[in-house]
Amino acid sequence: MPRFSKNIANLRSSEIRDLMSLATDPNMISFAGGMPGNELFPIKLVDNIYNSLTEREKQAAMQYGPTTGLPTLLESLSDYLESKGLPVRNNRLIITTGSLQAIHILAKAFIDPGDPVLVETPSFIGALSTFRACEAELVTVPLHSDGMDISILQNRLDCNSPSPKFLYYVPNFHNPAGIIYTPEVKLQMVNLLRGKEIPIIEDDAYSDLYFYEEDLPKMRLIKEMDPEGIDVCFTGSFSKILGPGLRLGWMLVPDSIYRKCELIKQSLDACSPSLSQVIADKFIREGYIHTYITEVREEYKKRGLAMIETLESCLPEYVSFEKPRGGFYTWLKLPEGCDATDVLRKAIEKGVVFVTGKTFDPDGACNDHMRVSFCNTDIETIHRGIPLIAEAIRELYG
Amino acid sequence: MPRFSKNIANLRSSEIRDLMSLATDPNMISFAGGMPGNELFPIKLVDNIYNSLTEREKQAAMQYGPTTGLPTLLESLSDYLESKGLPVRNNRLIITTGSLQAIHILAKAFIDPGDPVLVETPSFIGALSTFRACEAELVTVPLHSDGMDISILQNRLDCNSPSPKFLYYVPNFHNPAGIIYTPEVKLQMVNLLRGKEIPIIEDDAYSDLYFYEEDLPKMRLIKEMDPEGIDVCFTGSFSKILGPGLRLGWMLVPDSIYRKCELIKQSLDACSPSLSQVIADKFIREGYIHTYITEVREEYKKRGLAMIETLESCLPEYVSFEKPRGGFYTWLKLPEGCDATDVLRKAIEKGVVFVTGKTFDPDGACNDHMRVSFCNTDIETIHRGIPLIAEAIRELYG
Repeated sequence: MPRFSKNIANLRSSEIRDLMSLATDPNMISFAGGMPGNELFPIKLVDNIYNSLTEREKQAAMQYGPTTGLPTLLESLSDYLESKGLPVRNNRLIITTGSLQAIHILAKAFIDPGDPVLVETPSFIGALSTFRACEAELVTVPLHSDGMDISILQNRLDCNSPSPKFLYYVPNFHNPAGIIYTPEVKLQMVNLLRGKEIPIIEDDAYSDLYFYEEDLPKMRLIKEMDPEGIDVCFTGSFSKILGPGLRLGWMLVPDSIYRKCELIKQSLDACSPSLSQVIADKFIREGYIHTYITEVREEYKKRGLAMIETLESCLPEYVSFEKPRGGFYTWLKLPEGCDATDVLRKAIEKGVVFVTGKTFDPDGACNDHMRVSFCNTDIETIHRGIPLIAEAIRELYG
Repeated sequence: MPRFSKNIANLRSSEIRDLMSLATDPNMISFAGGMPGNELFPIKLVDNIYNSLTEREKQAAMQYGPTTGLPTLLESLSDYLESKGLPVRNNRLIITTGSLQAIHILAKAFIDPGDPVLVETPSFIGALSTFRACEAELVTVPLHSDGMDISILQNRLDCNSPSPKFLYYVPNFHNPAGIIYTPEVKLQMVNLLRGKEIPIIEDDAYSDLYFYEEDLPKMRLIKEMDPEGIDVCFTGSFSKILGPGLRLGWMLVPDSIYRKCELIKQSLDACSPSLSQVIADKFIREGYIHTYITEVREEYKKRGLAMIETLESCLPEYVSFEKPRGGFYTWLKLPEGCDATDVLRKAIEKGVVFVTGKTFDPDGACNDHMRVSFCNTDIETIHRGIPLIAEAIRELYG
């Protein structure tokens, strides 16, 4: 038997993985996945892009590129992010192999085994898994409908010694909780962390998928505020606005952090896929990104509204949820004492799956929530599947 | 200033990176890179593949895939590796984001900070960088023209306590040394390591690029021998036989190691690029891989022979080198006391670059060698550039 490292003892297979195999069963209705529906990918636009590539560009697509990204994509993405209000000029951009790699690189840059890091509960499972792989101690701050609990954050900062290495959070259309942080909470976070040498990792994978333009001012990122006295590491992704199969994300970080992250990325995979980068670059340059995002935003809104309507009409009144205003997820709260895994088992019997709450709990314990996605099911399937989940709940809890 | 982790203190920027910027200067002749020439990529074949994809396949190319790889590529690659004699059935295959990621995952699976690992000197810089990122202690075994020094390996095994976590080696057309391991040395390695719980990581990126079919029996991999009592982790890559820009490699490992590696990969980038995987799968299924490898093998042979001939005709007689019989590299030995960095400085003045020996030395010290690649320069450029390197050496050392 080989002698494995101790540092991987923390890694565990998540329920999500097992669900994924169910989710691809064509007889199963899946509200489990966090991926776009296959039918929504911009296949025609990518065809246009591929067919417009010169021989030279195709060669570049097959070749190694610089560790931090192809210069042409760094340029077009910089312009794109700047047009959205991000402080591109006094920060540096790295293209990563999905935004999970960006989070992983930042985790490696800051975490030594045993180091505490601040995370929301519930939190994005991919980030938790990468922090665990770095042997971080996960210090949790509960999430409410306006963002993280500020008095508990304050308490964690006061009590925790050594002080946390960073704070990781998802500002908009939270995965799994679906919420938008209010400007007040973000401002209080900044005020609490300023001058404390605790960077913020701001993971913004969903912002483009808002239902209501009126929410935009509220959704302003901490990175956009560009606050003094605090390092903000902003991460983003092409997964929701082009396709996760390209495996492309990015980080926008201060120069001192950039230099460490570049070295770490070099030891991980040398560079991100050039073929994907060439396509993403053209996707931005040709302006396809705007037309495509507008299109999917409309579609996700239709699905989200259908989800809200169906949930409202068929859930027992003791199950509550925050109405999503964008993104991919609804987050249902069962009454105290109920167990989402019991509901899941019953739901599977009825041919439908979702993800249980404890999957997103850094402590793996709290299980009175259910994440029900609306990204990967059309309206008709929502109408068909949600009543089955409601039925499963009623059979268990009346 | 953010408080970075201690575990990245080991990472340093390599000379190679700085060289890369020189290497892309169109006025500079570069023998530095370890990448295929742009003109050699199978652009037409990839066009054929892209244009033959169904809408469903294109959707799969844009979507997340399973962490261990797209089932269709796992199938076609398994068949391909099995046809080459690899024991696919009693092992498991993982598709990785380049073979560097495979090495990185294996490093994470075995190394805790301070753990010793056995590496050749000289050794592949990417592997060294990833072992350093895991804070391994690099225990070196010198390389000769027939493979690693067996008596020193024996000595390292006898003296090292705690015992090394694994042995990493490159069996064929070594990077940078260009050598092929003899069957005798491989057998002695196996005999020394058997029963010691020291897995072998066998990194085979270059085997397909042999000049002489008669070398094939000699090149038989330890993984092919499938020895009892020793875990062999075999890694390979599409970088040299299709294109590094796809970022696709693989590992073929025993089941117990597979299960750890799957979890680690999940925390790194969730899955490898699907678009790349769809293309690589068709590249194998359509049989393009055979015609293409035959074609580039011929071309690299021409370049390698031109390199040998030019080196023989213009190097001072005190510079020696092993004639390459495949792969990408020649490895020149300067007399004792000479410094490859001095040669490099002078060569750059003359408009030509290569990589200095110390880059590949785990201790970063020994600098009496030069890696001169022939993969990325046509014959005319070899004829033009190599005399400039010879001139630089003569000007320094007579």
